[in-house]
Amino acid sequence: MICMSRQDGRGPGQLRPITITRQWLTHAEGSVLVEFGGTRVLCAASVQDSVPRWRRGSGQGWVTAEYAMLPRATNTRNDRESVRGKIGGRTHEISRLIGRSLRACVDYKALGENSVLLDCDVLQADGGTRTAAITGAYVALADAIGWMRERRMCPGDPLVGSVAAVSVGVVGAVPMLDLCYTEDVAAETDMNVVMTGTGSFVEVQGTAEGAPFDRGALDQLLDLAVAGCEELTLIQQEALGR
Amino acid sequence: MICMSRQDGRGPGQLRPITITRQWLTHAEGSVLVEFGGTRVLCAASVQDSVPRWRRGSGQGWVTAEYAMLPRATNTRNDRESVRGKIGGRTHEISRLIGRSLRACVDYKALGENSVLLDCDVLQADGGTRTAAITGAYVALADAIGWMRERRMCPGDPLVGSVAAVSVGVVGAVPMLDLCYTEDVAAETDMNVVMTGTGSFVEVQGTAEGAPFDRGALDQLLDLAVAGCEELTLIQQEALGR
Amino acid sequence: MICMSRQDGRGPGQLRPITITRQWLTHAEGSVLVEFGGTRVLCAASVQDSVPRWRRGSGQGWVTAEYAMLPRATNTRNDRESVRGKIGGRTHEISRLIGRSLRACVDYKALGENSVLLDCDVLQADGGTRTAAITGAYVALADAIGWMRERRMCPGDPLVGSVAAVSVGVVGAVPMLDLCYTEDVAAETDMNVVMTGTGSFVEVQGTAEGAPFDRGALDQLLDLAVAGCEELTLIQQEALGR
Amino acid sequence: MICMSRQDGRGPGQLRPITITRQWLTHAEGSVLVEFGGTRVLCAASVQDSVPRWRRGSGQGWVTAEYAMLPRATNTRNDRESVRGKIGGRTHEISRLIGRSLRACVDYKALGENSVLLDCDVLQADGGTRTAAITGAYVALADAIGWMRERRMCPGDPLVGSVAAVSVGVVGAVPMLDLCYTEDVAAETDMNVVMTGTGSFVEVQGTAEGAPFDRGALDQLLDLAVAGCEELTLIQQEALGR
Amino acid sequence: MICMSRQDGRGPGQLRPITITRQWLTHAEGSVLVEFGGTRVLCAASVQDSVPRWRRGSGQGWVTAEYAMLPRATNTRNDRESVRGKIGGRTHEISRLIGRSLRACVDYKALGENSVLLDCDVLQADGGTRTAAITGAYVALADAIGWMRERRMCPGDPLVGSVAAVSVGVVGAVPMLDLCYTEDVAAETDMNVVMTGTGSFVEVQGTAEGAPFDRGALDQLLDLAVAGCEELTLIQQEALGR
Amino acid sequence: MICMSRQDGRGPGQLRPITITRQWLTHAEGSVLVEFGGTRVLCAASVQDSVPRWRRGSGQGWVTAEYAMLPRATNTRNDRESVRGKIGGRTHEISRLIGRSLRACVDYKALGENSVLLDCDVLQADGGTRTAAITGAYVALADAIGWMRERRMCPGDPLVGSVAAVSVGVVGAVPMLDLCYTEDVAAETDMNVVMTGTGSFVEVQGTAEGAPFDRGALDQLLDLAVAGCEELTLIQQEALGR
Repeated sequence: MICMSRQDGRGPGQLRPITITRQWLTHAEGSVLVEFGGTRVLCAASVQDSVPRWRRGSGQGWVTAEYAMLPRATNTRNDRESVRGKIGGRTHEISRLIGRSLRACVDYKALGENSVLLDCDVLQADGGTRTAAITGAYVALADAIGWMRERRMCPGDPLVGSVAAVSVGVVGAVPMLDLCYTEDVAAETDMNVVMTGTGSFVEVQGTAEGAPFDRGALDQLLDLAVAGCEELTLIQQEALGR
Repeated sequence: MICMSRQDGRGPGQLRPITITRQWLTHAEGSVLVEFGGTRVLCAASVQDSVPRWRRGSGQGWVTAEYAMLPRATNTRNDRESVRGKIGGRTHEISRLIGRSLRACVDYKALGENSVLLDCDVLQADGGTRTAAITGAYVALADAIGWMRERRMCPGDPLVGSVAAVSVGVVGAVPMLDLCYTEDVAAETDMNVVMTGTGSFVEVQGTAEGAPFDRGALDQLLDLAVAGCEELTLIQQEALGR
Repeated sequence: MICMSRQDGRGPGQLRPITITRQWLTHAEGSVLVEFGGTRVLCAASVQDSVPRWRRGSGQGWVTAEYAMLPRATNTRNDRESVRGKIGGRTHEISRLIGRSLRACVDYKALGENSVLLDCDVLQADGGTRTAAITGAYVALADAIGWMRERRMCPGDPLVGSVAAVSVGVVGAVPMLDLCYTEDVAAETDMNVVMTGTGSFVEVQGTAEGAPFDRGALDQLLDLAVAGCEELTLIQQEALGR
Repeated sequence: MICMSRQDGRGPGQLRPITITRQWLTHAEGSVLVEFGGTRVLCAASVQDSVPRWRRGSGQGWVTAEYAMLPRATNTRNDRESVRGKIGGRTHEISRLIGRSLRACVDYKALGENSVLLDCDVLQADGGTRTAAITGAYVALADAIGWMRERRMCPGDPLVGSVAAVSVGVVGAVPMLDLCYTEDVAAETDMNVVMTGTGSFVEVQGTAEGAPFDRGALDQLLDLAVAGCEELTLIQQEALGR
Repeated sequence: MICMSRQDGRGPGQLRPITITRQWLTHAEGSVLVEFGGTRVLCAASVQDSVPRWRRGSGQGWVTAEYAMLPRATNTRNDRESVRGKIGGRTHEISRLIGRSLRACVDYKALGENSVLLDCDVLQADGGTRTAAITGAYVALADAIGWMRERRMCPGDPLVGSVAAVSVGVVGAVPMLDLCYTEDVAAETDMNVVMTGTGSFVEVQGTAEGAPFDRGALDQLLDLAVAGCEELTLIQQEALGR
Repeated sequence: MICMSRQDGRGPGQLRPITITRQWLTHAEGSVLVEFGGTRVLCAASVQDSVPRWRRGSGQGWVTAEYAMLPRATNTRNDRESVRGKIGGRTHEISRLIGRSLRACVDYKALGENSVLLDCDVLQADGGTRTAAITGAYVALADAIGWMRERRMCPGDPLVGSVAAVSVGVVGAVPMLDLCYTEDVAAETDMNVVMTGTGSFVEVQGTAEGAPFDRGALDQLLDLAVAGCEELTLIQQEALGR
């Protein structure tokens, strides 16, 4: 393979500069500003001492997420979903993905009948907003659970692992890690992978944007994602001072 | 591996009885009632001699889809989305998936500035409604394109391949093909795979419902899906009289 | 009167071929696919062991209905009401009519504090969808009540009669029974009549689409409707094996 | 028949005091405050020199109506439909009825490509709001058409007749004209009849609220309605100074 | 200052003819038709023996308001907010202002856990609808509280004062009281002032529509408003027979 | 007057620490993160080379604003307006205020047929979010206009002045400048004042939250606001390097 360099000089398997800033907000029980290059997502964890109606009386907790983008997070302005009066399909899809991903590292019984709601608001978008959101929201969730444990709200330790996420894709026939916006637009194949800190898969979502892909390309992309998530897990642990 | 039999007596790699009934409706340019066991989806293809605003003047066509479920398609009744006044996240997600999947076998230029809209309405649900919808909608799309070509509406042949889809999952530690509803609910891991008739991947969406999964399980599920989609492709071709 | 033949060869007082298929769905407590010629409506009855809030504590039950049309039931596609975000006036009007009509044959006290909700979804439309829906929904309701009585859910027998409905109209100065779509469009006067199995009126809704009509025309239309509903009542009883 | 007197002393075939006040508003091209006893409806006719999109280029006009009720028109307050965010089925149904009724006395070609929109807002409700609205809206429409003709907006005379409407019903086995609210609530059968000034039917909507009704009752109600509409036509003509 | 006369001959500090008609409606516990010249607002007060959820158990009552305009209250017709499916910003803003203003003369504890909801519907608009609404709604509120006190619903006397409101503005460099529509449109500065009967301020909302205004103009406008509100207070007291 | 110190040690007439950070976003034509103590608002200015429909062909531009709050900007989480499906009255009210305020320093003709839309998103709320938004949005607007002028999009210089805003209120009988959240909640009277850089008033909105206020209190609050806006104008000019 030719050693092609990317527009920002990165190698194909290299992450963008990643920053995780904890306690960016005063009020939230956990809050993180996560940056993957130019992508900036504010993740706020809100603790509630109740659960959704369908969960009541179960003795178990719940974790959910809402994703949104500020109107001028992108190059051209998007109308607000509140103004349009309805939430778009993409927003719904990503909110559900973040919620499912975070629940993979939570023990509902140890959480007791409490909820944590993760708000992931994209302040600036440059590709990979959903995977940045998952990676940052995990740290906000960990802080919120720490807050709860200090107050002895939970019967046990609800945090049974960690999750991180990254995008991979084939751009100009080259498999690449952590696509920025211009790479994402040019990608033939695009995949988002969510993994636990122990290297198992939580979600694998691959889409042929251009031509369909074969098993070989799929395997190469998974290899890149595994390495990327490992690195992100280290950055999360460091941010949490572990 | 133990030769475990499934509740309906199928082997792990066996599809449910598949039926594709063409021309189920009088008005639509293409229409199919597709059945995967107890799952019954009505797919109607509507041809329009125009394209969405953002596509106008491009000389290229568009294919899109809308998925919905009748309120009593399921065991307990669900409120209508029209009554609730908004479309749920799951519906949005599946509509987008069907549209993307079908577009993988369409040449927009050969279609000219025409659209085909696929309505996939689940009359009865017993697991795998989205994959049944894709598999049936492809046949309705092929009929609609045939209808257009008879009327010389298209500058070329827009159908450049075929797509089929199937669900796979790990149930009780056994990887299985084409899950019915009770298997789907019990699955630890759940994956929907969309493939072309030539064996390439269009979409791979795997989710750990219970414990995260490793690379080995992922590979086994992909093997099952590849075989299932091959079989579905044959059934589609037969239905189309090819 | 000249013995004018209709486009499908029927006489003015003749119904289209009527088919009532019970148990078309697996999950619903009662379900019927009813066909009046090319008009095909799927009627599903859902039993709930509760009543609306305003009815609670009364010891009495409730029966209601929701009518809807699949987007491609008609010759040109209609946008989904769920996508538009609101239910149109026509849909509301017909849902209310079906509910009122069915309640005419129900004893609320004998039903106890239970509800039956009738979903009438038009799969294909060729005129007379609302009257076909009422005629089919009665059979689905009878099956649902049978299901409840087997389980001893009701304090008595809630089914105190039957209802059937048919459309009549004046087309080209000739009063006709059971209009198909092209006749409906051409009608000067259009009337929907709902009757009990014993020959009393539940609803009479007549509209001058073109010129206003006199008392003589009104009487002729009512005569046709009375005969049509009698015939439909026999078909219902036969379908129910009575 | 026993000479039963009604709560307000009327005979069974007697209208309540009817008042039609023209030019109740300054801005509207036609405006009427119509009173049927305690029922008070403000009817405003707005002229527009355009037609709905589907009508453009036809050379023909259009007449439509919107019905609504102020929140405290009734004995207990109803939430505003604007606050609920959607229009109820009853409102839709009545708006459509008023529009259809008024269109029965309009020649679209003589109207040219102009529209008249009738807003019928119930300020106080005491039964028969929809029939009062039709009766009053006709006068507002006549004034608006007069306004247009003064300005030579119409190619001909669009007003080809008149319409009036009244409710009838069976209360305590006695057929009665022009039900007030307490009678309406007690009625076994309830019918709204819209007629032209020349005595033809435009709409007949009869509903069995309690027991179904037979042909004899139907005929008696129609007789009452015919007489009532005749009387209302005279009152309309007098109000218009004809 | 030049003694400039206004289009209707008033002096700069003169109110339009003000009319307050009590008991305009039969059903409402308090109801007023208030007229400021051509501006006509129907104010209906509805008593409820409950409070909003957030207020329950406090022993205290609540007063709130909803403002709306009939579609043809204005010179050109406005679409209904119920048809648009949402309430506009202006409507929200004015409803909130009316509610806040009326609460300034209410003792929540003396009201007990009861609510009064003021519906202010503009039947005809000619400038100053929000201030007319406040002035009229106070009288309707006073009547509703009288109604409650007769029934001994309140632990004390909840009406601890009165409120009235008026608009003022600078038109053609002249500060003026109680602007009609054409003056309002021409105003450089526009201010709404709500005062108690004892001469204190409840709300002061001044807006530079054209050029920003200085402290001198602000003071002149406040002087006019103080005098106008004094006069309106007298008219209110007279209407209430005090 | 007693020299009372505030919870954060400020004197009654002292602003909180104010920070204005320009170019906080990459994509927007102007963007500012403005901080008034713990209140943090992200203001993004988006330039569009078009105007709203009602403005087309006038040769004049338009400036508008949208205000919103992230769900966890506050101490307890608020539901998203996009999830609720409608925008609340408070949001509407503030968006309109910001737009009106900014338009006071813009020459529409010099702007040409271009628009600037200011998105003001509250990332963290600690009182005075609307006045901070106006103060920051002015700087973002100035940058966006600079961007346009570099590209020669405008026929003239549209920025004809500056605006700044501050809240004032009476807390514990003491008039105070720039209330933080706990002061705002405790205030008897609350006023928002928007002024031009030259010391004229654009908006004055005073509300008696508790007891009504007299003319003396009003004058004291205006004095504080005038001084506060002067100081904010200096900070804006410094941020803009003037």
